[in-house]
Amino acid sequence: MADNLTSRKQDYSQWYNDLVLKGGLAEHSDVRGCMVIKPYGFALWENMRDVLDRMFKETGHQNAYFPLFIPKSYLSKEASHVEGFAKECAVVTHYRLKNDPNGGGVIVDPEAKLEEELIVRPTSETIIWSTYKGWIQSYRDLPILVNQWANVVRWEMRTRLFLRTAEFLWQEGHTAHATKEEAVAETVQMLDVYAKFAEEYMAMPVIKGVKTASERFAGAEDTYCIEALMQDGKALQAGTSHFLGQNFAKAFDVKFADKNNNIEYVWATSWGVSTRLIGALIMAHSDDEGLVMPPRIAPLQVVIVPIYNKDAEARQRIDDKANALVKELRSQGIRVKFDNDDTTRPGWKFAEHELRGVPVRIALGARDLENNVAEVARRDEKTKESVSLDGLIAHVTNLLDEIQSNMYNKALKFRNESITKVDNWDDFVKTLDDKGGFVAAHWDGTAETEDKIKELTKATIRCIPLNNEQEAGTCVLTGNPSAQRVLFARAY
Amino acid sequence: MADNLTSRKQDYSQWYNDLVLKGGLAEHSDVRGCMVIKPYGFALWENMRDVLDRMFKETGHQNAYFPLFIPKSYLSKEASHVEGFAKECAVVTHYRLKNDPNGGGVIVDPEAKLEEELIVRPTSETIIWSTYKGWIQSYRDLPILVNQWANVVRWEMRTRLFLRTAEFLWQEGHTAHATKEEAVAETVQMLDVYAKFAEEYMAMPVIKGVKTASERFAGAEDTYCIEALMQDGKALQAGTSHFLGQNFAKAFDVKFADKNNNIEYVWATSWGVSTRLIGALIMAHSDDEGLVMPPRIAPLQVVIVPIYNKDAEARQRIDDKANALVKELRSQGIRVKFDNDDTTRPGWKFAEHELRGVPVRIALGARDLENNVAEVARRDEKTKESVSLDGLIAHVTNLLDEIQSNMYNKALKFRNESITKVDNWDDFVKTLDDKGGFVAAHWDGTAETEDKIKELTKATIRCIPLNNEQEAGTCVLTGNPSAQRVLFARAY
Repeated sequence: MADNLTSRKQDYSQWYNDLVLKGGLAEHSDVRGCMVIKPYGFALWENMRDVLDRMFKETGHQNAYFPLFIPKSYLSKEASHVEGFAKECAVVTHYRLKNDPNGGGVIVDPEAKLEEELIVRPTSETIIWSTYKGWIQSYRDLPILVNQWANVVRWEMRTRLFLRTAEFLWQEGHTAHATKEEAVAETVQMLDVYAKFAEEYMAMPVIKGVKTASERFAGAEDTYCIEALMQDGKALQAGTSHFLGQNFAKAFDVKFADKNNNIEYVWATSWGVSTRLIGALIMAHSDDEGLVMPPRIAPLQVVIVPIYNKDAEARQRIDDKANALVKELRSQGIRVKFDNDDTTRPGWKFAEHELRGVPVRIALGARDLENNVAEVARRDEKTKESVSLDGLIAHVTNLLDEIQSNMYNKALKFRNESITKVDNWDDFVKTLDDKGGFVAAHWDGTAETEDKIKELTKATIRCIPLNNEQEAGTCVLTGNPSAQRVLFARAY
Repeated sequence: MADNLTSRKQDYSQWYNDLVLKGGLAEHSDVRGCMVIKPYGFALWENMRDVLDRMFKETGHQNAYFPLFIPKSYLSKEASHVEGFAKECAVVTHYRLKNDPNGGGVIVDPEAKLEEELIVRPTSETIIWSTYKGWIQSYRDLPILVNQWANVVRWEMRTRLFLRTAEFLWQEGHTAHATKEEAVAETVQMLDVYAKFAEEYMAMPVIKGVKTASERFAGAEDTYCIEALMQDGKALQAGTSHFLGQNFAKAFDVKFADKNNNIEYVWATSWGVSTRLIGALIMAHSDDEGLVMPPRIAPLQVVIVPIYNKDAEARQRIDDKANALVKELRSQGIRVKFDNDDTTRPGWKFAEHELRGVPVRIALGARDLENNVAEVARRDEKTKESVSLDGLIAHVTNLLDEIQSNMYNKALKFRNESITKVDNWDDFVKTLDDKGGFVAAHWDGTAETEDKIKELTKATIRCIPLNNEQEAGTCVLTGNPSAQRVLFARAY
């Protein structure tokens, strides 16, 4: 199996595609830019979604559902929002097909033209705030803490499975508050939820920070983000949480009466993560043998592979033991499969489960049973050991925890080693080219410099880290004074 | 609260709308025919979805995700499918907006016209079978047992919240099999899953049957259905499971090599239920005071309302007891809320929770605490009783079960009383007009007669029940010979 995979060194981008396709996560569909998420990939997304959904509910949010379509005019109501989102979107102009009078298939019925075109939602601020107008009259109606799990469409010209697709799945939280302080606190709270999810479940360390003005969400006053580092040294924005000020409340005229009966505009936040996280997960952990899944969200945590010989009785003993193990592991809440498929051999199965990144593999043969042991292999370090069947369940439970933290620590070490402080332009360019990763450098705070650096190096300011150390210095490009370093990187 | 509700007798249709809107389940959006599912309605849908999803997984299915868009030409590939679905659908023709050169908002960029228009999926057989072509080569690749939770769009002209909306949420199972027998067995299995879900969770009795040829899904060889009865005597199709034969395999050229290396077309099924079920749930159980939710899927199963007096110490005792009850009930897996909102009075809360259909209400006052009792009210029968605090948890647990079965039995009695055997045309029309419900009558088996009856009475053949009693008779309209009765009704 692994023989057919491109290695990271050979061609990182092809390696990534190989893992997505051969690992059975997703594939391209016949519709340009749209992917099919296959059962294994969707099971991963379900696990991620379920954890996030629980975290959202624990922080007081409820789910709701808003229309897929947005009237074209709504996009224009918030001035900077339309600039960001009107460009590349799917536009519904008609509502009926009819038989082609010239024979053959069907054609769009010219009589069925919509009065106002509808946009397939690229994000839902506008349709949701037009709805909130009906929900909010008084401070008693606030806060509104709503999340939506949905599909969205952005007509990207260059697409990559999970990382950038025309249609993708995501969640978008949209909250409404009586005060600025409360809205800012919500924005930061949800950033913390995302960071916790990325680090504790995806085993992926992230840097929490704020975007510069040029990198802000269209319509936001502040965009907070978590930035992760991929193995090729490129950064990836893994989640964003926006403080929207009163921009959408003003655009859709959403006001409320406060306790003193003053009429005020409502304060807003929005925050989202998407199936893009799956791309991040792959590039943060996987290796040249295939995917490496963190146990806490792995679709399958343990696979048991029988090593049959020709003895039917021995075979029966192996099956009995394997089925008993499956039962015990399941009772511990572990996702386990007994792979007793007769049409493939153990070696093929080993490679297949390695490719799919199953954290723990247990191999069970007749000789093992006689010795009361099983062979336990861990995917992350590709080591194996013989373990007594007596303590196997506890061993596996601990091993899953150990793999989870080992994956995180490994990624953290790599990430930390990939942050380089530089103080002059030559080092800046050289570091980006030779080492990659995050470059911590002084910047004069202007959009012009930011643009110029991007133009010269393709590196962008990923974020100004939260609680950033204040340190006087001079801009790496212009030499102008600067009060702090910011993190630059080339990014997905 | 209830004073503002229209009663069923006054105006059944308005009663339904009142419950959906005032019960906080959903509302119309600014986009024609599309609804907003509000948090309370979405929590109900989540509970329904979670139960169904578990049932699907227990029967071996996995979830996946396929594109929202379908190339226009795909619809035409299956001849009868295009007839059924091409008529009213949302058509994407462009992929970009641009600033209006005449000022104001944005306009569709005429340069960004798609080569082939895309249809927003009204159902996904075509895009899924075009994908399955790449997944299936040999019998080893079969069966494929996949389900998708998704939004779909059918451009309905007359919409009603939940019952018929342009966009709705649903699940669609799409399976592929090596033999006809296996595909038929799958179709029937999923019908049984739906029936079990409707009866055991929604407390809604259903009749399992087969549709006549004219009522079949466009592209199916057989459509199985579950039919429920609403309180106004109209039927509602609550779920369908289709045996698709080899129609889609032929349309998309999906073949496989069987064990003897013969190349065959693959056999297919598809099956779905949607947010329409919420409309059915409302109309099956609710009353003039509001919604009545079956405990097993109710968003909230128990609400505790404190009856405070002016004594602060008594208030504290009530709060302590209520919080302890919440904790105990939650530990039993019961969804409970302590409604200690200070801005509304107990009477208002009672009416509000009645309107929202919360199955059990516990009222707790200072006097109650002194007597070591609470007042427990059940929503279905609108009775209340004083219950000792000592056995309260067990009492509530039992009561929830009793409400669940009482609701089912009540609906079953009504449904059974609403099936009327008739043997001549006058009785047929009179029964439909005066009594409603299902009319069990002989039919000569022709589409002409079926059409004529529909034209004359607006009644359709809801189904030919499974395991239908065979009984010679004569068609209620034409007098031609018939071998069995079928079920007619006016329907949603």
